[in-house]
Amino acid sequence: MAKSTIVALSTPSGIGAIALIRLSGLDAFAITQAIFKGKILSQQNSHTAHFGYIIDGQSIIDEVVVTIYKSPNSFTKENVVEIGCHGSSYIVQQIIKLLLKNGAEMAQPGEFTQRAFLNGRMDLAQAEAVADLIASETAASHATAINQMKGGFSKRIKQLREELIHFASMIELELDFSEEDVEFASREGFKSLLHKIQAVISPLIDSFDLGNVIKNGVPVVIAGRPNAGKSTLLNTLLNDERAIVSDIAGTTRDTIEEILVINGIQFRLIDTAGIREAQDQIEAIGISKSKLKVAQANLVMYVFDIELPVEEVIADVKNLDKQEEEVLLVANKSDKILSSKIPKAAIAISAKEGLQIEELKKALYDRVLGGKIAKSDSLITNLRHYEALRNTQTALENAQKGIDASISGDFLAMDIRQALFFLGEITGEITTDDLLENIFSKFCIGK
Amino acid sequence: MAKSTIVALSTPSGIGAIALIRLSGLDAFAITQAIFKGKILSQQNSHTAHFGYIIDGQSIIDEVVVTIYKSPNSFTKENVVEIGCHGSSYIVQQIIKLLLKNGAEMAQPGEFTQRAFLNGRMDLAQAEAVADLIASETAASHATAINQMKGGFSKRIKQLREELIHFASMIELELDFSEEDVEFASREGFKSLLHKIQAVISPLIDSFDLGNVIKNGVPVVIAGRPNAGKSTLLNTLLNDERAIVSDIAGTTRDTIEEILVINGIQFRLIDTAGIREAQDQIEAIGISKSKLKVAQANLVMYVFDIELPVEEVIADVKNLDKQEEEVLLVANKSDKILSSKIPKAAIAISAKEGLQIEELKKALYDRVLGGKIAKSDSLITNLRHYEALRNTQTALENAQKGIDASISGDFLAMDIRQALFFLGEITGEITTDDLLENIFSKFCIGK
Repeated sequence: MAKSTIVALSTPSGIGAIALIRLSGLDAFAITQAIFKGKILSQQNSHTAHFGYIIDGQSIIDEVVVTIYKSPNSFTKENVVEIGCHGSSYIVQQIIKLLLKNGAEMAQPGEFTQRAFLNGRMDLAQAEAVADLIASETAASHATAINQMKGGFSKRIKQLREELIHFASMIELELDFSEEDVEFASREGFKSLLHKIQAVISPLIDSFDLGNVIKNGVPVVIAGRPNAGKSTLLNTLLNDERAIVSDIAGTTRDTIEEILVINGIQFRLIDTAGIREAQDQIEAIGISKSKLKVAQANLVMYVFDIELPVEEVIADVKNLDKQEEEVLLVANKSDKILSSKIPKAAIAISAKEGLQIEELKKALYDRVLGGKIAKSDSLITNLRHYEALRNTQTALENAQKGIDASISGDFLAMDIRQALFFLGEITGEITTDDLLENIFSKFCIGK
Repeated sequence: MAKSTIVALSTPSGIGAIALIRLSGLDAFAITQAIFKGKILSQQNSHTAHFGYIIDGQSIIDEVVVTIYKSPNSFTKENVVEIGCHGSSYIVQQIIKLLLKNGAEMAQPGEFTQRAFLNGRMDLAQAEAVADLIASETAASHATAINQMKGGFSKRIKQLREELIHFASMIELELDFSEEDVEFASREGFKSLLHKIQAVISPLIDSFDLGNVIKNGVPVVIAGRPNAGKSTLLNTLLNDERAIVSDIAGTTRDTIEEILVINGIQFRLIDTAGIREAQDQIEAIGISKSKLKVAQANLVMYVFDIELPVEEVIADVKNLDKQEEEVLLVANKSDKILSSKIPKAAIAISAKEGLQIEELKKALYDRVLGGKIAKSDSLITNLRHYEALRNTQTALENAQKGIDASISGDFLAMDIRQALFFLGEITGEITTDDLLENIFSKFCIGK
């Protein structure tokens, strides 16, 4: 248990019915007791709540409920106190000031979770999932974060790493006896372990694209000629959905982008007004910003009037300069009588009449995620994990090549050590202060 | 206990480490249990916290800590459950949706406190103090709200009301035996009770001005000729104070007013830029808005250059058209060599050099509150209480006159019933649905 006792407001700031102030550390009970008029906290059972008053000398600051969690049965595995007071900023400030005066220290961002990690309550990937969970805004990103928080892939990585450690120690043993020319570590056994590890980490690496989509959403640029009905389509898509989106209090939106949630995945719709208004024809895209948006988009939804001659549609799409699978063709105004052919790949809709909108949404979803939602529930959503896995993969490939070339044990040991290092970085068995600070500084204070 | 079980988010909305969802009602445990994977809540002791998962069928929504409070040992005196989940809007929404699906109802604003009142946990004045407490931003308004929440004056009012009820029942008895011309209720005893009640409620009525000042602050208009140094003074006052004000997170400020806190009282400084910029001379006040501000202000701080001839100062002040005690004269630029007399009542300061600023603050405070902070800690801050007390006073005065004029018992009984009604309104012994709705609808949801 850390010697210092930290304190922070753990609920969002602002006015509300209740605010929670959390303390963690060796002296959490004693520090709280110094300003608490009520039962003797240290004599109470863990996981019990106690009514009382926070006092500053003679004056009462608030009626509160104090809940105590005794080490090691708490979030941080330390002594933890939660003070539930009235949700007034003034009161919260007064109570925190009193606690600081009595020996508590202000918690750094993420310090509670960092202590939970350092005290072995969770591994690093799980700790990172806590932040993802708090930030999650859709069903899919939430499910991924929950899975990761519950252990997810990190359990398997830990297991594999242990097997690798066992092999590494055999190799090290060989090095100690290098003059004897014995082979403690079976090269065949090592090769099959390498395969096993690769079989786990390759799908994880591959899942990053999808995981990233789930966590951060899919940017979709809407392009098309003037009067193709892009704005109407955007409105139809959003009106349909807005009730659901605004139902989630606190959902933040980028001012330029509109969020459309399909099956729990965020599609960030970006209207290319610049293209539309500045120019008459899509082939004359002149504005670099809009061009850039199209170039960066995972997906371009090209909307055209169903009466536009098919060769012009094809020419427009060619000018977008995207891969075929990156463009979704949408033939709008299907309520009009169809006088010309439309490309086979296009979906005919009517934004105005709301026809085939569900089909369009399904097409959008399938184009990005079709068949990609793996049976496995292990997805990489974190760039740090992705990079560590990639580095592991490289190290293991080098080891593999080394065995094939029958290199000596000491070179092999170097590659294995590298792989162990990178695998350990994911779950936090290997950490540096910089790494920890980088991770936890992104947390909110009080977590 | 109410049959319906209500639910609401009780912590401020937004992203944070922890959010608290609160349920109250007969089925609070059963409804929570339906979505909680963990211990059997109804079998646990009151005031205990339990780790577990909120589940929706097979999928986990969140890791939570559920704290249970068994009736009648809870805030509402009903069964209460607090679910501490991760502070994500998405998770909060999901959990509340699940609880609603399982039979909970969305709480109305203030409904938890309303139930606490209806179930006898607190009287109406105490319930109202909860809202004041949450809104309190200064030490003084906080202390007043805490005192009122702890019972404050309402205990005494309840006592006096019971004595009055006793007397009323004697009078009613007289009416039953009216033909016999007996006097069960001693008129002398009643007169001394009336004195006792008046002795309690008069100071309370008188305390409303002060109570209002403590709760809502004192509007102070700063007036003066151009270049008198009003802006510099405002900055000097605020710079000195701003560190303290901004220290309190979530302090809201009116955009036009600046808040200066002196000894825990808010002074809302209003700069009359209109007067200053539109006209050269204060006697030429032409802008009705500024005039109105001056007219409405509890206090006008008239700032003048220390070199301005005293007769001109007097003429300016006369033009303000305020009572003498409503104007604080501030002779600025005291760092200059003094060549003319200044009015006796004026405080000489230097805004630029920061001279005598503490003295000015003390003068501001004393002018408004000097000698008024009563020894008694009972203050009326609520307009509703003030009006009920005033109405009580009138009814009692009528009763007094009635006795003096030896009116008959039935007329006396009417006045007493009126007094009982108004006294009962304060503590909530007499309530109407309208009254309750009016009070609790101003609460936040979740309280």
